[in-house]
Amino acid sequence: MTSPIRVAVTGAAGQIGYSLLFRIASGEMLGPKQPVILQLLELPFAMEALEGVAMELTDGAFPLLHGIECSDDPMVAFKDANVVMCVGSKPRGPGMLRSDLIRENGPIFVGQGKAIDAVAADDCKVVVVGNPCNTNCLIAAAQATRIPKANFTAMTRLDHNRALGQIAKKLEVSAGDIKNLFIWGNHSPTMVPDIDHAVASVDGVDRKVRDLLDVDWIGGPFDETVRTRGKAIIAARGKSSAASAANAAIDHIHDWYLGSGGSDYVSMAVPSDGSYGIPEGLICSFPVRITGPWQYEIVKGFELSMGMKTRIEATVAELTSEREAIADLL
Amino acid sequence: MTSPIRVAVTGAAGQIGYSLLFRIASGEMLGPKQPVILQLLELPFAMEALEGVAMELTDGAFPLLHGIECSDDPMVAFKDANVVMCVGSKPRGPGMLRSDLIRENGPIFVGQGKAIDAVAADDCKVVVVGNPCNTNCLIAAAQATRIPKANFTAMTRLDHNRALGQIAKKLEVSAGDIKNLFIWGNHSPTMVPDIDHAVASVDGVDRKVRDLLDVDWIGGPFDETVRTRGKAIIAARGKSSAASAANAAIDHIHDWYLGSGGSDYVSMAVPSDGSYGIPEGLICSFPVRITGPWQYEIVKGFELSMGMKTRIEATVAELTSEREAIADLL
Repeated sequence: MTSPIRVAVTGAAGQIGYSLLFRIASGEMLGPKQPVILQLLELPFAMEALEGVAMELTDGAFPLLHGIECSDDPMVAFKDANVVMCVGSKPRGPGMLRSDLIRENGPIFVGQGKAIDAVAADDCKVVVVGNPCNTNCLIAAAQATRIPKANFTAMTRLDHNRALGQIAKKLEVSAGDIKNLFIWGNHSPTMVPDIDHAVASVDGVDRKVRDLLDVDWIGGPFDETVRTRGKAIIAARGKSSAASAANAAIDHIHDWYLGSGGSDYVSMAVPSDGSYGIPEGLICSFPVRITGPWQYEIVKGFELSMGMKTRIEATVAELTSEREAIADLL
Repeated sequence: MTSPIRVAVTGAAGQIGYSLLFRIASGEMLGPKQPVILQLLELPFAMEALEGVAMELTDGAFPLLHGIECSDDPMVAFKDANVVMCVGSKPRGPGMLRSDLIRENGPIFVGQGKAIDAVAADDCKVVVVGNPCNTNCLIAAAQATRIPKANFTAMTRLDHNRALGQIAKKLEVSAGDIKNLFIWGNHSPTMVPDIDHAVASVDGVDRKVRDLLDVDWIGGPFDETVRTRGKAIIAARGKSSAASAANAAIDHIHDWYLGSGGSDYVSMAVPSDGSYGIPEGLICSFPVRITGPWQYEIVKGFELSMGMKTRIEATVAELTSEREAIADLL
């Protein structure tokens, strides 16, 4: 039998965790034949709620779920973990600026980065979902002395999927009919959806998305919708987007492990190698090609329009300023 | 391409709905190649929240999700539906008795049963999740003049899965290693978990579960845990068991359509054909064999111990008294 993969999840009793864990247990993330052990981390005050979540996971009777461990100590929860999904983070309170949020989260991700480096499996893969995810990931990766820094990633797949969903709706096709769309930069309103290389299968024929859509719609409502979607969901639901975030986290890890299916590349925020003039080390969303199980590379050589270059410079400038704000933690 | 299956879900903006819809959209319920169209029903006051859920479903970029329709009118939401999942129901308020709950839900399920019969697909399959689910289902089925009554079922799969989870934990095996366990009767504390025919694969050898477990544990902690699990989850989480209920609903429909995998039978509450002396027409949980896509039969001929007979009589007596309480709606 295939050995179980140990998946650690932080903030496991939170809203995103609740939408995420059952889908990991059912095999959606790592495939229908891959057993998993869930290692769940929560803050001490949430341990009873986490116990309730663990009870419900047991009640799922999932054939692939070979164990559930709950802890409030990252040194326990991350022990031998093959995958660490950092879902938990301190949310932005009323009146808090983004810069405050970055400072508040810093120590959490210093601690988690150190714990991952100390006890996780040698080949541990990390995705940071908790915001500000790029800079939280940068902080965690900076603690690594043993785990390769390229294994630390942050999630821009929700932005990617939101862009896909809007294009699919506009073209009246399935989201599965669109490929090679991606997101540049920070997971923040400065992010840059890039559809210049996207292709849609319409009535069985591959066509450039650019040729099918009105330029004003792309630069206007589409861009606005993708960048401000989180607020629109909160306005409608009265709660933040948990299930779609969990879904994107599943897609991120699924594709990293099992490939991106019909699309040649996907969006992942990964340590920059200097491509496209983006400063080395920044955790920046790039078009990424999955080259094998747990293998990726930044896709190089795309020609960027002047408009695209300007926007990428702006989102990268934001990432750079975030890095400066927590320079003492690196 | 395979035609989409239309899945109507009531109470779609509720907690169970939120855990359910994304898994239907991802293909977990009807298989990885089966497109679906979601037809979501909510009460008028929840339509804005439902719109938020629909936005998040779009943001899932699910290749199999070929449409999302939202309505507060069952005649719209159930139109041409191939599957109707009645998740919504009026919850029990403080001080309400089970009998009050039954009376309060009656008119809802008269209306939904009539709407299903009026506009759903000829071969529509129904699962009632909203409690009291057996009697709610009985009421809905009673309205049917066109859809076969055998297509109306209620969910005892959560009880089934809870029993599986407890046995698996006790035997230190995966839930997938246990088969042929089932639930008799009402989805209420009178339900009867039956492990007399259950088999566990332990170290690759099939063994009778009865022979592996202490009789006092089966009659004591096991039985108590399964029957009172809902309350224990609420005590721990502070919220009712939404994700495990959604998971059981997925299992119920998945197995009905695609088969029960390694287990020879599963638990479904279906119209009694008089087997085991259970009055005809009652919606009672039986061991059920899936004989083909959307085909099932009640498994007959099990020898029942005296103790089991007595307990089944008690849960059936409860179902009978529930039927009497809403006799005017049938």
